[in-house]
Amino acid sequence: MFQTFADSASPAQGPPRLKALRKAMAAVNVDGFLVPRADAHQGEYVAPSDARLEWLTGFTGSAGFACVLSDIASVFIDGRYRVQVRDQVADVFTPVHSPEVQLADWLGERLTTGAKVGFDPWLHTAKEIDGLRKDLAPKGIQIVATANLVDDIWDDRPAPPMAAFTAYPDDLAGKSHADKRAGIATELTKAGVASAVLTLPDSIAWLLNIRGTDVERNPVPQAFAVIHASGQVELFARKGKADGIALHLGADVTIHDESTFLGALATLKGPVQIDPKSAPQIVADTLEQAGIKVAQGDDPCLLPKAIKTDAEIAGARAAHLRDGAAMVNFLAWLDCEAPKGRLTEIDVVTALEGFRRATNALLDISFETISGAGEHGAVVHYRVTESTNRPVREGELLLVDSGGQYIDGTTDITRTLAIGAPTHEQRACFTRVLQGMIAISRARFPVGVTGAHLDSLARYPLWLAGMDYDHGTGHGVGAYLSVHEGPQGISRRAAPIPLERGMILSNEPGYYREGAFGIRIENLITVVDAPALKGADDRAMLAFDTLTHVPIDRQLIDAQLLTADERAWLNDYHAATLALIGPRVDGDALAWLDKACAPL
Amino acid sequence: MFQTFADSASPAQGPPRLKALRKAMAAVNVDGFLVPRADAHQGEYVAPSDARLEWLTGFTGSAGFACVLSDIASVFIDGRYRVQVRDQVADVFTPVHSPEVQLADWLGERLTTGAKVGFDPWLHTAKEIDGLRKDLAPKGIQIVATANLVDDIWDDRPAPPMAAFTAYPDDLAGKSHADKRAGIATELTKAGVASAVLTLPDSIAWLLNIRGTDVERNPVPQAFAVIHASGQVELFARKGKADGIALHLGADVTIHDESTFLGALATLKGPVQIDPKSAPQIVADTLEQAGIKVAQGDDPCLLPKAIKTDAEIAGARAAHLRDGAAMVNFLAWLDCEAPKGRLTEIDVVTALEGFRRATNALLDISFETISGAGEHGAVVHYRVTESTNRPVREGELLLVDSGGQYIDGTTDITRTLAIGAPTHEQRACFTRVLQGMIAISRARFPVGVTGAHLDSLARYPLWLAGMDYDHGTGHGVGAYLSVHEGPQGISRRAAPIPLERGMILSNEPGYYREGAFGIRIENLITVVDAPALKGADDRAMLAFDTLTHVPIDRQLIDAQLLTADERAWLNDYHAATLALIGPRVDGDALAWLDKACAPL
Repeated sequence: MFQTFADSASPAQGPPRLKALRKAMAAVNVDGFLVPRADAHQGEYVAPSDARLEWLTGFTGSAGFACVLSDIASVFIDGRYRVQVRDQVADVFTPVHSPEVQLADWLGERLTTGAKVGFDPWLHTAKEIDGLRKDLAPKGIQIVATANLVDDIWDDRPAPPMAAFTAYPDDLAGKSHADKRAGIATELTKAGVASAVLTLPDSIAWLLNIRGTDVERNPVPQAFAVIHASGQVELFARKGKADGIALHLGADVTIHDESTFLGALATLKGPVQIDPKSAPQIVADTLEQAGIKVAQGDDPCLLPKAIKTDAEIAGARAAHLRDGAAMVNFLAWLDCEAPKGRLTEIDVVTALEGFRRATNALLDISFETISGAGEHGAVVHYRVTESTNRPVREGELLLVDSGGQYIDGTTDITRTLAIGAPTHEQRACFTRVLQGMIAISRARFPVGVTGAHLDSLARYPLWLAGMDYDHGTGHGVGAYLSVHEGPQGISRRAAPIPLERGMILSNEPGYYREGAFGIRIENLITVVDAPALKGADDRAMLAFDTLTHVPIDRQLIDAQLLTADERAWLNDYHAATLALIGPRVDGDALAWLDKACAPL
Repeated sequence: MFQTFADSASPAQGPPRLKALRKAMAAVNVDGFLVPRADAHQGEYVAPSDARLEWLTGFTGSAGFACVLSDIASVFIDGRYRVQVRDQVADVFTPVHSPEVQLADWLGERLTTGAKVGFDPWLHTAKEIDGLRKDLAPKGIQIVATANLVDDIWDDRPAPPMAAFTAYPDDLAGKSHADKRAGIATELTKAGVASAVLTLPDSIAWLLNIRGTDVERNPVPQAFAVIHASGQVELFARKGKADGIALHLGADVTIHDESTFLGALATLKGPVQIDPKSAPQIVADTLEQAGIKVAQGDDPCLLPKAIKTDAEIAGARAAHLRDGAAMVNFLAWLDCEAPKGRLTEIDVVTALEGFRRATNALLDISFETISGAGEHGAVVHYRVTESTNRPVREGELLLVDSGGQYIDGTTDITRTLAIGAPTHEQRACFTRVLQGMIAISRARFPVGVTGAHLDSLARYPLWLAGMDYDHGTGHGVGAYLSVHEGPQGISRRAAPIPLERGMILSNEPGYYREGAFGIRIENLITVVDAPALKGADDRAMLAFDTLTHVPIDRQLIDAQLLTADERAWLNDYHAATLALIGPRVDGDALAWLDKACAPL
């Protein structure tokens, strides 16, 4: 479970594998082949057996893909990975900036009419392939499904994960899978479809109240499923994985071998709903070839999963108090150790994971901890390795973004700490970030508002100074599930989904000065009915309740820049933190907490 | 030009006309007929010859439609018109709340399979009819194009407006119509279409640098046009209207009689682009029947029209100074007259229009002035008539929303005034509205942000108190064109169009306490490149520059509630107002302005 720091990059592996892949391409007569980072379930993490992009190119980032032609091979990466890709891949691969360069344009410039580009139809979504085909049709370039040519040449490919699924307790889920299935069935009937295909593991985990250990960090089960308008579900998983939960699943959920999935699809009565944003192309092809009517629609589990039950919210609160105490122990330790000048970024990660493990409740970290000192703080998705590791020095900011997976909830918290005395500029920037974070925390808004509407509240204090940050303000968070989940979010690109009571989101504005420092402050918040207010309109309004309770570094706050309301919010937050976390820590940590929560 | 206050409602006219319409429906064998408020150009104002809804029902609102069946006749109206409709229409018409009740649902509940609903295909957009047909097809209800059955029974229907179009000077437009046509031609070529059909008068006015007097308040020409990818334009207008501008239009713009429009469409080579949101159904039908390939897309003039030229912005500034001086004369007069207790809402409207006329530059008011005292201020689109007119009393708020059409620009301004001493609550509410208005005024934001993203900034101070307003924060404004124009806007429902330098918008948060008072503060603002700022990121940012300079009632501001930055903005705004408007007024008005602009 502990985070590792080895440099997995080995550029040397690339050239011979690329050569073998091109041979395989020639054998099946394609001029190109796509190697995505994604597996068939389109999640943020993949099992070692699905790490095809890394195996071929050496690139270990969490997003990207390779496109191999006979004379050039590219690795498409977004802004986060421009430096990393250069260190990790051999120069037989050309890094290409995405989304500035679109795959279709790149292919269109390099291939001519009649060219064929192969892809594994399990690994690309129907939407992706549909878009690519539309863009390339005018040029006469074909996108053709083939076997996975990487798998064909990958001799020592690891076996897929075989660990058993487990049942998730009803009292933590707050709703039985029978009730959830009945709810989805009602929606399917309303939409006029007979069945819906589910290919997202966290949708299946939520629907059936099950969990798995198939990928790191996200406790999701690798499986496919079909839910019928009757509420009955067919679950497709590798042999044996679901045997232990047969009783939990009951008679209305039948277990099938994963290998029978496509065959079962072909026998469905339509209309069958698929979500083209996540369903593999092969699902769409199979239904089409069987002459079954397909209805496109969002995965029906997405929205109900996002709206947590009261039990899930209660679980999240408990998990956040436990995690908050671990964070306070860590911060007290850091405050004592950092001035000695011997800590490295890796020490910080290891210590923090240790404090979380000491809760005896940590099931996994919820993502690789980001521990960025000085200029590393400005690398938004920085992940320290042995080769990037550096000391945490006096006069620097340290950005620590981390989280835990507990049986009752998933946490995600960022704190930025001053190591020694911060500069005036660091304090001014931090205070603006804090003002944005407070604006979201205090927000009260009418029903119907989406995260895209609220995003500017978090940025406004920075905008006024000509600053901004190049990431969303908040993402959805699962209930002992994925730390990043949709459709809710606080971002200009968030889905146009009104926020609803029970959703959990992050609230994490930031500010990054390249080559100098990074600042991010992140709490998780949950949407609640707005408390009654004297003089208020007679209109339904929502508000946020903050789940995370961990002090915000007072050294970094320029209190003169805060309005009276902002200062009051901060003091209230710290008072609540002391009241909630105080009883859960002791000794030096309690003394530290007491000081850290003093009013400003 | 002067606004009139006669009660045009005459419910008694409705029943005999409804009876005649039903007879006409029976004659052509339809079970229903739609009577929209719109004309073929979908504008906010219609000519008397197009006022079919008013003629049939008596309803004079600016939006709505009637649906007549054999046994029931409805008038669909939105929230603004629920009271008004009851006063204006006879009880043979049933008011129906839109959008809560959708026409398709209403028809579906009242008609059975095989029923036919007639409509005039000139008066409904392709999108509207397409949606209606899709919704009603499963029920077997047909929507069929017919002659206009209202016109058939409207014996004394006025003649359509025949006044000549005029050329709009290039130096005010900032761009010749040849340049504009060339720009659109490039876009059409890029989109791969041969021609685009234009049916919106303000698009045609902008494209060809022409204006008209065909409807009140908006100086637009009633015409249709086709622009080709060559940049050439065919203009279709009633005989004689365009003769005087033939020289201005030149050889590449040919003038045709309106009656030849459909015939000309049928001879086009495709693909032809139409905007289904504004093109009449008959345009889509004509192209389809002629076998011409249709491409759906936004009216290509919308976005370039919204992005004003430097000359248009300079014109807008000049118009706003002129209009601001008229407003200051008005406000000084009001401050003197109101305490005498003899003013009515109509007096206010008439006096204000008089001050605007005294500029000797007013071409029209830009919409019917809203003058709402006390509880009338809470009626968002209140328009005073002789029967609703009431005195402006001590202790009340007076909301005045008005604007002028000048050759160099269109203005739109709202001020809310305290008549006598305001209550604590009125001041608290006004101050929150002002804080929202200031938040937008001060906003600085990265390129790419849309009005939907900024809307919450204007509402946040109200939201925190559990309050909100049920209208957008801002709409686009034309350059001596429509006072409401798209696609830009500041609203959750605004089109997803990034704001661009040169756009003009209103900034008008409000607050309404039903039965008590209404508050709205409105300035026009224009999008500018954000001024350089020390310490700012190296990123392209935009800001707003305020065009309107008229004092905001200091009596209504609770300065204790403002932050230092908000107070500084207000004082700067008043100082600029005094500097800009001071030289344009004299005597008592100057003395009043001087006091009104004193720092807070």
